[in-house]
Amino acid sequence: MQEYSSKLLENAINQIAKLPGIGRKTAVRLALHLLKQSPEEVSLFTESIANMKNNIFFCSKCHNVSDSPSCEICSNPHRVSSQICVVQDIRDVIAIENTQVYKGIYHVLGGVISPMQGIGVADINIESLLGRIEQEDVSEVILALPATTEGDTTAFYISQHIRKRNQNIQISVIARGVAIGNDLENTDEITLTRSIINRVNFESTLK
Amino acid sequence: MQEYSSKLLENAINQIAKLPGIGRKTAVRLALHLLKQSPEEVSLFTESIANMKNNIFFCSKCHNVSDSPSCEICSNPHRVSSQICVVQDIRDVIAIENTQVYKGIYHVLGGVISPMQGIGVADINIESLLGRIEQEDVSEVILALPATTEGDTTAFYISQHIRKRNQNIQISVIARGVAIGNDLENTDEITLTRSIINRVNFESTLK
Repeated sequence: MQEYSSKLLENAINQIAKLPGIGRKTAVRLALHLLKQSPEEVSLFTESIANMKNNIFFCSKCHNVSDSPSCEICSNPHRVSSQICVVQDIRDVIAIENTQVYKGIYHVLGGVISPMQGIGVADINIESLLGRIEQEDVSEVILALPATTEGDTTAFYISQHIRKRNQNIQISVIARGVAIGNDLENTDEITLTRSIINRVNFESTLK
Repeated sequence: MQEYSSKLLENAINQIAKLPGIGRKTAVRLALHLLKQSPEEVSLFTESIANMKNNIFFCSKCHNVSDSPSCEICSNPHRVSSQICVVQDIRDVIAIENTQVYKGIYHVLGGVISPMQGIGVADINIESLLGRIEQEDVSEVILALPATTEGDTTAFYISQHIRKRNQNIQISVIARGVAIGNDLENTDEITLTRSIINRVNFESTLK
């Protein structure tokens, strides 16, 4: 016996339930919600997704998403093009842009080295990063990768290969430490250790 | 300043964030997930939703969703057509069908009477239910509406109007009581009161 009285509804539910973090019950709720919307609203929904998938560009330089072959950040003359911030994912670009504190440009790896998941150096955009460092006038590479073993491995690999080719580039890593709002008691030991070793001048934080 | 480097991505995120229970962060996650899928997978996704919206029928008799003008349940000769279970929503049909215990047919109201939300008798499928009772050979109407004031009001309204037209139809309501797995201590008083008043023969529950 079929679980739903409509195959069309069932198909839509199955597709929605494939999305990460969306369970079967939520998928039913979302499908029935869409069914109740006007035809115009539903086509706005489906077309926005189809348009994104079919017409979006990945910037040929930094691999960020863009509406043109070269992204808005790379082609913005007000950005400091000698500073490259290396991130795992497009989501990280969005997060850093939201802080409004970074004025350089980016390089999106599209992942981190993970032997466990079968992701090697060739699967992510490391070669093109090293190419940029050789061809462009880069003064600093900021490694803003996840604070995980995979992130650290990737950062180490990249830093080694940059150093091999160029002795002068500054290689930085974003600060690890006690997150704002957290107390020391509930911060893990490794983070706390790092935050003590990498302590900074107090008055400089007040500026 | 634009929050995202791509207007296409931003549009998709905005549309996804309109779905109930989906916050902005989840919308970003889902949009980027879809962006990573193959074009085929994404068109399967969008087309399943567009197909559902454009081609689904609402059964002319019971208002359940269907792939043809008369739904599979109503047109199934093995279902007991003299028994009508009145529910608020399509989701309730799915829930009751999953129990596999009900062999009658349905009537989907599409809502319950709610003066607070401006939903009156004319806004839901009550008139067509009363029409069915006059035209079809109905022996029992089972009211399976939410255990809320609105659900109870709707049940009362329907029962009054059925009785006015027909003295013989049996009007039932699904049992309220202590949910399976719950203990008495944590069951609210009204539910507990109802479950005591509507107690049933113990041996009959063992069959």
